[in-house]
Amino acid sequence: MFEIAELGHTVSKADYNEQVPELRTQLLTVQQQLRSCDFSVLILISGVDGGGKGDVINLLNEWMDPRYIRTFAFGTPSDEEKERPKFWRFWRTLPPKGLTGINVSSWYTEPLAKRVSGQIDDNALQIELMQIRQLEQELIDDGMLIIKCWLHLKKDEQKKRLKALEKDPETSWMVTERDRKHLKMYDDFALVAERVLTDTSTGDAPWLIVEGADLRYSSLTVGKHIYNRIQQQIKRREAEKIARAAVKPPEHIMPLAQQNLLDSLELDLTIDKKDYAQELAFYQGKLNKLAREAHLQKRSAIIVFEGWDAAGKGGAIRRLTHAVDARAYQIIPIAAPTDEEKQHHYLWRFWRHIPRAGMLTIYDRSWYGRVLVERVEGFATDQEWQRAYSEIVNFEEALVAHGIVLLKFWLHIDKDEQLRRFKEREQIPYKQYKITEEDYRNREKWDDYQIAVNDMVTRTSTKAAPWVLVEANDKKYGRIKILKTFCERLEKALENSGSGGKNGASRSGVAT
Amino acid sequence: MFEIAELGHTVSKADYNEQVPELRTQLLTVQQQLRSCDFSVLILISGVDGGGKGDVINLLNEWMDPRYIRTFAFGTPSDEEKERPKFWRFWRTLPPKGLTGINVSSWYTEPLAKRVSGQIDDNALQIELMQIRQLEQELIDDGMLIIKCWLHLKKDEQKKRLKALEKDPETSWMVTERDRKHLKMYDDFALVAERVLTDTSTGDAPWLIVEGADLRYSSLTVGKHIYNRIQQQIKRREAEKIARAAVKPPEHIMPLAQQNLLDSLELDLTIDKKDYAQELAFYQGKLNKLAREAHLQKRSAIIVFEGWDAAGKGGAIRRLTHAVDARAYQIIPIAAPTDEEKQHHYLWRFWRHIPRAGMLTIYDRSWYGRVLVERVEGFATDQEWQRAYSEIVNFEEALVAHGIVLLKFWLHIDKDEQLRRFKEREQIPYKQYKITEEDYRNREKWDDYQIAVNDMVTRTSTKAAPWVLVEANDKKYGRIKILKTFCERLEKALENSGSGGKNGASRSGVAT
Repeated sequence: MFEIAELGHTVSKADYNEQVPELRTQLLTVQQQLRSCDFSVLILISGVDGGGKGDVINLLNEWMDPRYIRTFAFGTPSDEEKERPKFWRFWRTLPPKGLTGINVSSWYTEPLAKRVSGQIDDNALQIELMQIRQLEQELIDDGMLIIKCWLHLKKDEQKKRLKALEKDPETSWMVTERDRKHLKMYDDFALVAERVLTDTSTGDAPWLIVEGADLRYSSLTVGKHIYNRIQQQIKRREAEKIARAAVKPPEHIMPLAQQNLLDSLELDLTIDKKDYAQELAFYQGKLNKLAREAHLQKRSAIIVFEGWDAAGKGGAIRRLTHAVDARAYQIIPIAAPTDEEKQHHYLWRFWRHIPRAGMLTIYDRSWYGRVLVERVEGFATDQEWQRAYSEIVNFEEALVAHGIVLLKFWLHIDKDEQLRRFKEREQIPYKQYKITEEDYRNREKWDDYQIAVNDMVTRTSTKAAPWVLVEANDKKYGRIKILKTFCERLEKALENSGSGGKNGASRSGVAT
Repeated sequence: MFEIAELGHTVSKADYNEQVPELRTQLLTVQQQLRSCDFSVLILISGVDGGGKGDVINLLNEWMDPRYIRTFAFGTPSDEEKERPKFWRFWRTLPPKGLTGINVSSWYTEPLAKRVSGQIDDNALQIELMQIRQLEQELIDDGMLIIKCWLHLKKDEQKKRLKALEKDPETSWMVTERDRKHLKMYDDFALVAERVLTDTSTGDAPWLIVEGADLRYSSLTVGKHIYNRIQQQIKRREAEKIARAAVKPPEHIMPLAQQNLLDSLELDLTIDKKDYAQELAFYQGKLNKLAREAHLQKRSAIIVFEGWDAAGKGGAIRRLTHAVDARAYQIIPIAAPTDEEKQHHYLWRFWRHIPRAGMLTIYDRSWYGRVLVERVEGFATDQEWQRAYSEIVNFEEALVAHGIVLLKFWLHIDKDEQLRRFKEREQIPYKQYKITEEDYRNREKWDDYQIAVNDMVTRTSTKAAPWVLVEANDKKYGRIKILKTFCERLEKALENSGSGGKNGASRSGVAT
């Protein structure tokens, strides 16, 4: 596939000087239009060593308005980055809507280097590429425009280029031992690169392969490509907007799943007061030890709490954190997104809170809002909440693959019990704030929410991250079940330590 | 001063059980009130080893609603933290308005430990404590409530406590080699601690010294103290709000400074086209080398651009970044703050962008907005913009002390030249977006801005970070001056490398 980039394309100085002013005006104009658009642009510049990545990026920054571009080069990960799933460092630097990001050494760099050096085999590479395709697709689905450019050089051109750089004392610092090594491995590198490009050239995010020998040619080609793609995307998004406005949201929520898992829960399960006191003390003691061990082993855990209003999430969280050192956990209460969060993919606000190694993070409501409140209230379009199931499964797989222990609790109560608790809360001064008109409004949509919860549980229960449905009509019973389940999962994870982090998640049944 | 915490205070179990429910209700209630207040609460828990810091914090998290508390323990700094000024890690975890942060091992830990171990002398400690007082005062001025609690133990109590912890296999892990060493140094530690507490017990942020031998006593004492302080602060803020509303903002801007530095600028300075081309090439080449060297030496630089609308900030920035690898700089354009930023001290949004080592960060407008637009438009109160001068000087001193090369350019043009440029911009399609009605509105307030700029330059020109006033009626002249100045400053900083980072900033004249 690299043949097209080995034809010896060049642009004369005169042509270049004639074309640049027009291109600059085009880029500046489209960049200004982009600022008020509801999507962002991510440009990935990759290629062979000596292909002129740095030069092209510098020219792009010069031609465009650099205030609305963010250029990131990803070198060795920092320790804060190493302690998170591998895509975390890329998520945290994604451009917000209206802006352009340029990534050098993007998510392609590591898989490519690892395969060339033999650290991973073809199968492992394939899995990494699949994860990259998933990631790109999710960003694209959210409206992001991803532009991928590969700067290619023929073998002898690369040799010539590195020689020239080395010879000039001004540029010799640019040639590293790694480059010299790569030159020797040119054929291996080209083979793997071809595989990577073929596998990840998708309809929405195709690779542009550019001959890198002549900077005038390569920079003009890349610049024009960027202009064209942004312009097309602006038109496309406008058309989509009109099409979206024409679609009426469905009046009723239609279930996706057949069976109703929630109905099968035995909500009359209870625990008597004495047993409760005993078991609470037992499991809190146990959790205290396990949490300490997890902290020492630098093993992180994430617990997601979802459930009906007044199902007892807060109380359950408190019984759990009671057993854990306050310095070792964070509770992230999820309400409406901030305006910075709104400028990003909906998962961005959850990525940003992923804990460092050894920490427990508790999400009081979570990314599942996408398929619950956003679905029921119509804040998300049908396509958006429907594709969210697999986006969420991918996200959770990334967490689990990194060795994070992930638990998801749905706290279930029935409609009568909810009303009783609303009334009770209204009587207790320091609980009154918990009851608002919105709670009563949500209550009216009980049946719709019931459908959404069922679909959610069915679609997102994976072996690595199964939903745990908690019978919570008896608060005490629910709390013990949650504590016990967390203890068991954490204990098992700590036993398997070392082997953790390798097992991928696979879809399977729901724990009840 | 520790005598009051060596009296053997205890609380019986019965008393404790009676008092806790009331205290909990009080804390929960006040916490709810806080959520809609325009200030945040920061609780610092410090004290001797074995004083029960962890236990007290865990109880606080249990009594209060942990969803609105963020507890941070600061251990060894991460590499990302080490590459920034020392307070950066604390700034990034400050609670937003309405929430409570609890810090264990806060900004007091390191100075204390370093003095006890003899790494720093009394004078160095005094400087560190002064910086802490400044930091706390700035946060307090912004409305933050800082509650500082010190958990004390008598020497023999500490010994007993550590022995008991060590003996129990459940808790022996808590006693580290460091604790044993500290016990031996109890007297030294107590002496330094006394000095630290005395020096930093201010009217607005006094230390509460609590006997830590009995957890029931210490936790109740700390809990009640927190409740009282938050309650008082809520009342105080309300009173202040009423008082503020009663004050009419002055109709005209009154200058603070005597002389008018701007008038002394020779705005007719020009450079001819040929010289410009030569010097531009020369300084860009020079900067390219210097910037590479700075990157290698991991020396960061921050450049602040301020100036009249249409003074040519964007063009100057582009001529400068042209010479720097796009992977090594970031431009931060400062517009209205996001809602997350609004929930914090006005300097928080600038702290968050402080670059990692070896990077160049360019602020296109900056923290000086506080004393320019916010002063002129009345967005900041008189007290707010007036105290901002020293807040800014402190902030910049922290940057320079960390070894960051800091430059501040004011691009100056006259009123006629501005109008000419406005008209010109309106003619060029891709520049039209730069001209809005706001520009004309700002122009009407030229005289007020002129006063504000003069005061700003006079008050915030320090030896470490002098203002450079740029005669920019001739854009080309201005650009060369900026490039040349940056080259000279960077060159000097790189020559002095190694010695950099130690020289404190002192107030001095303005460079022109």
